[in-house]
Amino acid sequence: MPLAPQRPLPGGSPADMLDEALEESFPASDPVAIGRSDRAGAPAGRSSSPIEWFDDLALGMRFQSRAYRVTAEAIKRFAAAFDPQPYHLDEEAAKATVLHGLAASGWHTAAIAMRLMTEVRPFGPHPLFGAGVDELRWLAPVRPGDEIHLEGEVIELVPSRSKPQGIARLKWTALNQRGEAVYSVIPLAIVPRRPA
Amino acid sequence: MPLAPQRPLPGGSPADMLDEALEESFPASDPVAIGRSDRAGAPAGRSSSPIEWFDDLALGMRFQSRAYRVTAEAIKRFAAAFDPQPYHLDEEAAKATVLHGLAASGWHTAAIAMRLMTEVRPFGPHPLFGAGVDELRWLAPVRPGDEIHLEGEVIELVPSRSKPQGIARLKWTALNQRGEAVYSVIPLAIVPRRPA
Repeated sequence: MPLAPQRPLPGGSPADMLDEALEESFPASDPVAIGRSDRAGAPAGRSSSPIEWFDDLALGMRFQSRAYRVTAEAIKRFAAAFDPQPYHLDEEAAKATVLHGLAASGWHTAAIAMRLMTEVRPFGPHPLFGAGVDELRWLAPVRPGDEIHLEGEVIELVPSRSKPQGIARLKWTALNQRGEAVYSVIPLAIVPRRPA
Repeated sequence: MPLAPQRPLPGGSPADMLDEALEESFPASDPVAIGRSDRAGAPAGRSSSPIEWFDDLALGMRFQSRAYRVTAEAIKRFAAAFDPQPYHLDEEAAKATVLHGLAASGWHTAAIAMRLMTEVRPFGPHPLFGAGVDELRWLAPVRPGDEIHLEGEVIELVPSRSKPQGIARLKWTALNQRGEAVYSVIPLAIVPRRPA
């Protein structure tokens, strides 16, 4: 992806600006925010040890992320790059569409959800890595000003027969500030097993 | 999403810079580029009329997008915002991971694919709008310098019994410059029926 033409600017290049703006959007230094009820790597509502290996996961185990506030600016910026359709780009144009107003691209919601998952760290020190996702659903529009958080539940655990790992299926649901589900997805995550 | 602190800059604010950089990445003015074999709204390899309504679609109909070149800068920028894991952020750190080098976030690939779909316009003037996607799969790493394009095929068409619309399922596959499939997804698109 080519960057904007480089011009000498006080404070850095356009690329630096962009990185700075994105960093400002999701400050990496402080994962604790409104709506966060549990520390990363530990299931919600429990005082057990943090999750580290596939073997530490159990069916029904639940996780919760902090909430993240979506702005009109972020919606338009993501859409301009990746989903330039009227209901994601312009308040006035969006009114006449099936969404009856500006709403985030579904792929923007998916990306925000990924970011929140990385903060939850359901597999402790191991990455969120997988072959894909099933049943990705956009359940309701995500509007400017909405605060969405994730709730996750372990729904299937399948140890590999040949490798020291397993496939963990968690169902993640994103809910807004009114408790309405706006998005859900079932990633197929590969998680290492505890060394013997 | 809060923007970076506003500072007076020649050429615009950080937000303008960011929009400019993204616009530069995906120039909206010229959808024709390397790898594009067909005009938007018309199926690949046919001289038929452009698609406009659900009724114009047929099983087996195929579409193809232009190719898009992925850069290390774009990979890192997306990852810093939405998927800050080592194999998406830093060449050196990525070498020691399961991906053996820098690769795009799977959600970045998904977002790029959405952009390419909007350029193909498989439903002509009607938006790409749907309830979700099934069987989203990351099949191979997307590396810096890769040029990926989309190929789509209509695999299911289900008219609504109660509304003047139908659900069109297209399977889209993203391929790199060596013809290797790197990503596939099956969106569930809602497309209006031709007015009686």
